[in-house]
Amino acid sequence: MKIAVLPGDGIGTEIVAEAVKVLKALDLKLEMETALVGGVAYDAHGHPLPEATLKLAKEADAVLFGAVGDWKYDKLERQFRPEQAILGLRKNLGLFANFRPAICYEQLVGASSLKPELIAGLDILIIRELTGDIYFGQPRGRRIATDGHFPGAEEAFDTMRYSRPEIERIAHVAFQAAQKRNKRVTSVDKNNVLETSQLWKDVMVEVGQQYPDVELDHMLVDNAAMQLVKAPKKFDVLVTGNMFGDILSDEASMLTGSIGMLPSASLNSSNQGLYEPSHGSAPDIAGKGIANPLATILSAAMMLRFSLNQEAAALRIEAAVKKVLEQGLRTADIYSEGTTRASTKEMGDAVVKAL
Amino acid sequence: MKIAVLPGDGIGTEIVAEAVKVLKALDLKLEMETALVGGVAYDAHGHPLPEATLKLAKEADAVLFGAVGDWKYDKLERQFRPEQAILGLRKNLGLFANFRPAICYEQLVGASSLKPELIAGLDILIIRELTGDIYFGQPRGRRIATDGHFPGAEEAFDTMRYSRPEIERIAHVAFQAAQKRNKRVTSVDKNNVLETSQLWKDVMVEVGQQYPDVELDHMLVDNAAMQLVKAPKKFDVLVTGNMFGDILSDEASMLTGSIGMLPSASLNSSNQGLYEPSHGSAPDIAGKGIANPLATILSAAMMLRFSLNQEAAALRIEAAVKKVLEQGLRTADIYSEGTTRASTKEMGDAVVKAL
Ligand SMILES: CC(C)[C@H](C(=O)O)[C@@H](O)C(=O)O
Ligand SMILES: CC(C)[C@H](C(=O)O)[C@@H](O)C(=O)O
Repeated sequence: MKIAVLPGDGIGTEIVAEAVKVLKALDLKLEMETALVGGVAYDAHGHPLPEATLKLAKEADAVLFGAVGDWKYDKLERQFRPEQAILGLRKNLGLFANFRPAICYEQLVGASSLKPELIAGLDILIIRELTGDIYFGQPRGRRIATDGHFPGAEEAFDTMRYSRPEIERIAHVAFQAAQKRNKRVTSVDKNNVLETSQLWKDVMVEVGQQYPDVELDHMLVDNAAMQLVKAPKKFDVLVTGNMFGDILSDEASMLTGSIGMLPSASLNSSNQGLYEPSHGSAPDIAGKGIANPLATILSAAMMLRFSLNQEAAALRIEAAVKKVLEQGLRTADIYSEGTTRASTKEMGDAVVKAL
Repeated sequence: MKIAVLPGDGIGTEIVAEAVKVLKALDLKLEMETALVGGVAYDAHGHPLPEATLKLAKEADAVLFGAVGDWKYDKLERQFRPEQAILGLRKNLGLFANFRPAICYEQLVGASSLKPELIAGLDILIIRELTGDIYFGQPRGRRIATDGHFPGAEEAFDTMRYSRPEIERIAHVAFQAAQKRNKRVTSVDKNNVLETSQLWKDVMVEVGQQYPDVELDHMLVDNAAMQLVKAPKKFDVLVTGNMFGDILSDEASMLTGSIGMLPSASLNSSNQGLYEPSHGSAPDIAGKGIANPLATILSAAMMLRFSLNQEAAALRIEAAVKKVLEQGLRTADIYSEGTTRASTKEMGDAVVKAL
């Protein structure tokens, strides 16, 4: 079982080091190889996703990813910016199915912006299509408008697109995930405005007929953004396209107040996957040893479950994380009075001890 | 001063009736003419935006709009669905500038999903571009894919587009609005992925140079969806495109917990405008006389301010609304223990009395 370890920028190195420590503490035969990605890769090799890094990722069974990005790369041409590495990995590995759980841990209810009764016990799973939509749709670019409000003016454009098989495969992922949960899928689109959304909805309905045990409903994206705030616990599995999923999954994870706890998985059709925390590279706290490594450690657990077929080991890690929370250990982002402040390293060590 | 009154579907008739009552109680020369729009117009004339209604709206100085939509029209072909009326009005009247304030009234802090300290005193203004973007971008439709992941498969597509002058004019609206407020503009885009967003950001920066007294910053849409939950009070004016604005303005208004209080205005370049509550047609409570008319009454106040140049009258209405809240009157959606429950009509009467 080969893992490509790509720590990336900012706090990436620190949090990935703890996840690697946890993986090593398991009695599994894991081969791990590290490579540069993101801004540090650009600095060293002139590209955020160097050939060698991509090759390593392709050959591995799974990628453990930290985070990429730093303000100092903001001025680069877009193709060289750190985020392009993550888009390139998704595209080249065909990682079309993104799993973003939004879970509120009992001990961390207080960290949420929301009133405790609205958020306690939250456990929703957002499934975002990750290789299609306006993210990758061609054509795109700048040109002189020949129609519209200002013919003759400079304009920029992008193309939102989804094909039937692209929607079908993510639908199956969502329905199958719901079968293991509370058997409800909410498909989010904007079918009252977009052609793409109308096809999305049609295909969801069709695929849904193959899953009579799962209840399917549809919600417009603007309404979904509201319902997540109003009554997040009403959702079970929320499935949506790449663009809407980007927005809604981030909204949902922030609702918990503890985004430092939330892992993610991005899978292709052969269960090869990329695993990364839901939060970013946080350059403002990089190098200080205070970042929360738990989202990355929980991402490693998802990796064991989805790509390496090691459910038992995944459960061990998840139980260990719960245990350190029960022990009262907290990194700065989730600290509250009466708990014990821990550094990144102390948190990783505590998880290893709790295994 | 001529007002086209378009109550629409669901609770539209009830709430608009109260706003009209309030307008009539002012000592202004207002000519009001009512017409059908939305599902009721489809039922009567076979189209959600009949020619006569559009003509009336075009000739008026302002449109007072209720709400459109009902589940019973869900099965219609998209071009006949009630929402098409609102899209048609925006397009035909060139209503490119949508103002959506998200305000949390002191007395209603408890209605929010958010903890009181995060929401008390909230006063942000979302400015959404309303006639461009993927809402209206051509080409769009269904076809057989010739490239992408599944060449040969059926696909649907839409085009996101913005031209430089379209972005410039909404930028000016945002900066000028900020000058009358806290002098901060946050422009929201997805420039790390979209060509359209890169042009959006570039133009915002350029136009911003003409407003040295206003501070401009940029935020990615996924991050904006998070920051609205985490610290909504950090925003002053948030300006964004049609699609992102649809999502973020609804998220922001739901944060307040009292979307029944929030008005909106949609203006064209000659200050002709359409005024409507931020909430929808709520067919589930239509006809029961319990809907909150305050958002519509406050929309009428915005109409007096923006399109009819009657600032004093607008202020009178706004003060009257504050007064009825202070008196403890509440419709069902904002009711809490210790306050007095009021029907739609009682609420409208109370505002008239408080004028
Ligand atoms: C970095 C960026 C391109 C990326 C996205 O928009 O998909 C990120 O926001 C995410 O959600 O993983
Ligand atoms: C009804 C619909 C087309 C409309 C939109 O998406 O603009 C609505 O959601 C709104 O925000 O006014």
